[in-house]
Amino acid sequence: MNPSLEDTMALLDHTPAAINALLRDLPDSWTSRNEGENTWSPFDVVGHLIDCEHTNWIPRVEWILQYGETQPFRRFDRGGHARETAGKTLGQLLDEFARLRLQNLGILSTMNLQPEDFERRGLHPSLGVVTVGNLLSTWAAHDLTHLHQISRIMAYQCREAVGPWQRFLGVMHCTGHSEQA
Amino acid sequence: MNPSLEDTMALLDHTPAAINALLRDLPDSWTSRNEGENTWSPFDVVGHLIDCEHTNWIPRVEWILQYGETQPFRRFDRGGHARETAGKTLGQLLDEFARLRLQNLGILSTMNLQPEDFERRGLHPSLGVVTVGNLLSTWAAHDLTHLHQISRIMAYQCREAVGPWQRFLGVMHCTGHSEQA
Repeated sequence: MNPSLEDTMALLDHTPAAINALLRDLPDSWTSRNEGENTWSPFDVVGHLIDCEHTNWIPRVEWILQYGETQPFRRFDRGGHARETAGKTLGQLLDEFARLRLQNLGILSTMNLQPEDFERRGLHPSLGVVTVGNLLSTWAAHDLTHLHQISRIMAYQCREAVGPWQRFLGVMHCTGHSEQA
Repeated sequence: MNPSLEDTMALLDHTPAAINALLRDLPDSWTSRNEGENTWSPFDVVGHLIDCEHTNWIPRVEWILQYGETQPFRRFDRGGHARETAGKTLGQLLDEFARLRLQNLGILSTMNLQPEDFERRGLHPSLGVVTVGNLLSTWAAHDLTHLHQISRIMAYQCREAVGPWQRFLGVMHCTGHSEQA
């Protein structure tokens, strides 16, 4: 059972507000700490979500519609979030993420994709053949993987404070760290 | 580095709004499906959060302050969420969770706990000795473990739709399932 486009878009519409409600005006002790060297803070994750709105989703749908399998997507730059976060506050990033998402959902609507369009195939530089349908579902799942990650990063900050309860808190035992975003 | 009471309370104040923004008015295909037999849907998780507001947090702080290590907490009933969800809509559950959380944070404030109170020890029926400080941090971490879980349950609904991208989505590989809530 795959989510319908309508259901995918509903989720994409909700997640920026959820991340905003979670993080805005929360103390820095929650939002600016990470899980150790070469890991991201919640602040960095929001920068990454912005970067993906610019480069990963609508541009890749357009790429498939234009090139099909003849040319692979450009590779995603995993360090791109640093461009987005430099000199910004978390509040500014949350505003920017919400603005871009709204804009991109508007573009997706005007594309007026038909059922046969979801089967159109493109070429991912490392995953090989993917469809427009895969891409749109991944857009939504990507929000979820980063909400999952933000929850885990924040829980990491109180891993010692919870004492013996650590054993019962699944988030403290999560190995679902993304190989790549 | 343990979160201060102020930081813990800030998170406890934010999470009901985040879960509300994520789930309210989202299609049932996201909120009512689970991860298979004997697992919870996001709807069930909100019921569990309500149940915990009633039985797990403030009542256990009061229990420690009253009995110390002389009497263990009453065991938590993992099926208690069914009492909370029966005949309710998700919107009603989200309202109820927000209302109870606000009320409980008010009670916590009026307790006016002092630094030495966080070291006071109680007895968990299976974990043994725990402190008031452990309990309060666990309250916050418990919100995070269930936000982590909700993200994972929802991602599970599109595990096939994402196609080859499943490999890159950490949430699809999470083993951080709570042994007990």
